[in-house]
Amino acid sequence: MTARKIGVTEVVLRDAHQSLMATRMAMEDMVGACEDIDNAGYWSVECWGGATFDACIRFLNEDPWKRLRTFRELLPNSRLQMLLRGQNLLGYRHYEDMVVEKFVDKAAENGMDVFRVFDALNDPRNMARAMAAVKASGKHAQGTICYTISPVHTVDGYIKLAGQLLDMGAESIALKDMAALLQPQPAYDIVKGIKDTYGDVQINVHCHSTTGVTLVSLMKAIEAGADVVDTAISSMSLGPGHNPTESLVAMLEGTEYTTDLDMDRLLRIRDHFAAVRPKYQEFESATLVDTNIFSSQIPGGMLSNMESQLKAQGAGDRINEVMAEVPRVKADAGHPPLVTPSSQIVGTQAVFNVLMGRYKVMTGEFADLMLGYYGECLGERNPEVVELAKVQTKKEPITVRPADLLEPEWDKLVSDASNLDGFDGSDEDVLTNAMFPGVAPKFFASRAEGPKNVGKTPAQLAAEAAKAAGNVPGIKVPVNYNVTIAGQSHSVTVEPA
Amino acid sequence: MTARKIGVTEVVLRDAHQSLMATRMAMEDMVGACEDIDNAGYWSVECWGGATFDACIRFLNEDPWKRLRTFRELLPNSRLQMLLRGQNLLGYRHYEDMVVEKFVDKAAENGMDVFRVFDALNDPRNMARAMAAVKASGKHAQGTICYTISPVHTVDGYIKLAGQLLDMGAESIALKDMAALLQPQPAYDIVKGIKDTYGDVQINVHCHSTTGVTLVSLMKAIEAGADVVDTAISSMSLGPGHNPTESLVAMLEGTEYTTDLDMDRLLRIRDHFAAVRPKYQEFESATLVDTNIFSSQIPGGMLSNMESQLKAQGAGDRINEVMAEVPRVKADAGHPPLVTPSSQIVGTQAVFNVLMGRYKVMTGEFADLMLGYYGECLGERNPEVVELAKVQTKKEPITVRPADLLEPEWDKLVSDASNLDGFDGSDEDVLTNAMFPGVAPKFFASRAEGPKNVGKTPAQLAAEAAKAAGNVPGIKVPVNYNVTIAGQSHSVTVEPA
Repeated sequence: MTARKIGVTEVVLRDAHQSLMATRMAMEDMVGACEDIDNAGYWSVECWGGATFDACIRFLNEDPWKRLRTFRELLPNSRLQMLLRGQNLLGYRHYEDMVVEKFVDKAAENGMDVFRVFDALNDPRNMARAMAAVKASGKHAQGTICYTISPVHTVDGYIKLAGQLLDMGAESIALKDMAALLQPQPAYDIVKGIKDTYGDVQINVHCHSTTGVTLVSLMKAIEAGADVVDTAISSMSLGPGHNPTESLVAMLEGTEYTTDLDMDRLLRIRDHFAAVRPKYQEFESATLVDTNIFSSQIPGGMLSNMESQLKAQGAGDRINEVMAEVPRVKADAGHPPLVTPSSQIVGTQAVFNVLMGRYKVMTGEFADLMLGYYGECLGERNPEVVELAKVQTKKEPITVRPADLLEPEWDKLVSDASNLDGFDGSDEDVLTNAMFPGVAPKFFASRAEGPKNVGKTPAQLAAEAAKAAGNVPGIKVPVNYNVTIAGQSHSVTVEPA
Repeated sequence: MTARKIGVTEVVLRDAHQSLMATRMAMEDMVGACEDIDNAGYWSVECWGGATFDACIRFLNEDPWKRLRTFRELLPNSRLQMLLRGQNLLGYRHYEDMVVEKFVDKAAENGMDVFRVFDALNDPRNMARAMAAVKASGKHAQGTICYTISPVHTVDGYIKLAGQLLDMGAESIALKDMAALLQPQPAYDIVKGIKDTYGDVQINVHCHSTTGVTLVSLMKAIEAGADVVDTAISSMSLGPGHNPTESLVAMLEGTEYTTDLDMDRLLRIRDHFAAVRPKYQEFESATLVDTNIFSSQIPGGMLSNMESQLKAQGAGDRINEVMAEVPRVKADAGHPPLVTPSSQIVGTQAVFNVLMGRYKVMTGEFADLMLGYYGECLGERNPEVVELAKVQTKKEPITVRPADLLEPEWDKLVSDASNLDGFDGSDEDVLTNAMFPGVAPKFFASRAEGPKNVGKTPAQLAAEAAKAAGNVPGIKVPVNYNVTIAGQSHSVTVEPA
């Protein structure tokens, strides 16, 4: 029996550090692992997306387009993969179609191969133009199902959505489980259903590991026919991140499936990031495993958002009321999946409802969600709340594709960017400013200073070790320590300056 | 379809803190969770074993027998379960049969219900008398297969061993995977094989989570017919510990299996230990996931042992030679599973071979292992090495059950204990001193002082939090140091945050 080969997408360069360390990893801390990553035998290497783009210009003074080109150089044998928010591109609003096409062309031109296109509401209309642009550029267009649990979300509904994505020309279907909600049985049923209904379409499964159960879901998805699964090298895995790549390899040994990954390379990749990870410890969350979401339906990130909003209002003690309100608001909105941006929109409105009375005050974003300006949800929106949204905003509900209402904006975006100090005249810069107008100007102005690594230096780690050892500040003579920095042991001498 | 109910053994009171925090948890930190544990719907509650017994008298000044009686009072509805090292009881040598019977009688009398009986070499003769004693006491005798990977260990061999355990009257079979080596396919094959061969015998599966893959192994074992699986509440799970109980519940939702556990109770148990765990942080290992063992065959604990032995000899740089030597030594010894005590015995001999030449010097324990004094291994022992062991020790190899060579020793054990200050005259004290003669005398003498909790107090934790926040006593202004790392000098400033 020859085992069926299961492809693997390594997410360590994008989603792993986004999920574990607030997307702070600097390019210079990834470069050293690229040769092994490029030759380990992955199906693709995820390395770009909205949060990494944002963090590059907001925190790291790195040009995200240059980062992409560098990955292209360092990973010549690999499919580079990105996560694209459909009509939102990497930003938080819908863009006019020509901007979408420009972005996709430029991403492809700079080296992107696989575009995982998703929409927070699973509205195919918000993915269609981006998918078409990807196909026009000759790259791999992957249609995405955002997985969630609700009274209106069913296995059959997900299978139907897969069909719509295939009709739009998707070369593969991604089952995206950003909240680690995908349990083994639905994982099996959805993958099996898509294969049975549409034939042998490529299915990629993306799970986070927060609930501790999703490696089993990947096993069941594989048994049901899944072709590619996403994992992160073990030293950058688990918690709010992903299942460990090496564990996937071990899981399939002896079965009728195999990854054919090069374990020696994997272990070097692991050791590289094991040494890097401590530099970013201050950005790490403490979550190791959390199954609350199965009952609360509230993703961890969303919960902490609501808690800080309540604390800011001196109402930190009302979190339970808000948690009880979230399902009502979600239902009123037609059961949108709770992911960026819908999780923030629903969560903030739930806080408003508790603090000021139900829908007494509506956020502009929630009103837009109720009026269709983010697209269609699977469920019916509560007509009474829609009416309130109309009154409060004096806007009419829409049923068309939101981007159909947008005027051509490329020329304006070009002129906006042209007025900024440090603008380099490229379409890439125009797109950067279009997607992050609040951050790009400052980045353009400071870009010449070069990348800033926000991770700790060996010296800082050594000082902390010394401090932790308690010999501060009364050191009169040199003190020797063995300090393990980034996994490597050093003999350290601390003495008065 | 009514789902098949899967029993769950909660290990938080024994193996979880043994694996995560060096068995240091004090009874007072467990009491608060017992009512929820007792009513959550577990098949059994593991709460006693060799390491917890040892830690009680060595570190916590707690009487382990009193701890057992307290569990019995606090868990009136639960099966209490313990791990018993066969003829070794909870110690490190073989005991004469009457001592084994005394121990089992006393454990049963003090409230134990389920005895998981194992032997490090999987030699049924070392388990037989303990199993018989358990059955004589009317309690549940569980025969154990210690799972390992070697050229001589096969699925069929494990099925055969299960048969031997059943012939000895085992009421159930435990498949014990202490090194997280049990991959999904062998898990399925072994459980399926035992059920197909011997009918519907109860099978309990115990896995650690170190390699990140064993929740999948539990799923496959359940699909193959496993009846009970071991897990730890999520706040005391993962890493070198076990798979999270709540994740198991989530894993089975929607499948043809169910745990019927009370999730509200589980969440309270989780929250209880989430609050307790930080007190013992200093005892925690950093391991989160480690798949090295699949290639090295060397459990993490064994590796660190060998490293410290080498460092003590100023030969820390020769660890790779030792790691290469371990498989040879293991093969010479007939491929014993590498668990306590065989892991230490093989590892230490490997160190000796590297430092002094192969078998130039043999430890007494390794010689005994080669001569059969620990029992039989599955593989052939290397006759040349057996010969060397004879010469060095002037002892003859044996083929009988090791305990058959022991003289009755109960009366001597009683008189030994009687001479100790603080001996309370009970058989329990006699057994405590018999199993831990190096520790019991000091414990008896100090027992009256009552339990010592080695965890941090809330006040200490608060002080550390303050310190971490930068409020280091003594530092009011920035302090500068020259920090020399690996010969390179850095200027470092430490200042209040």
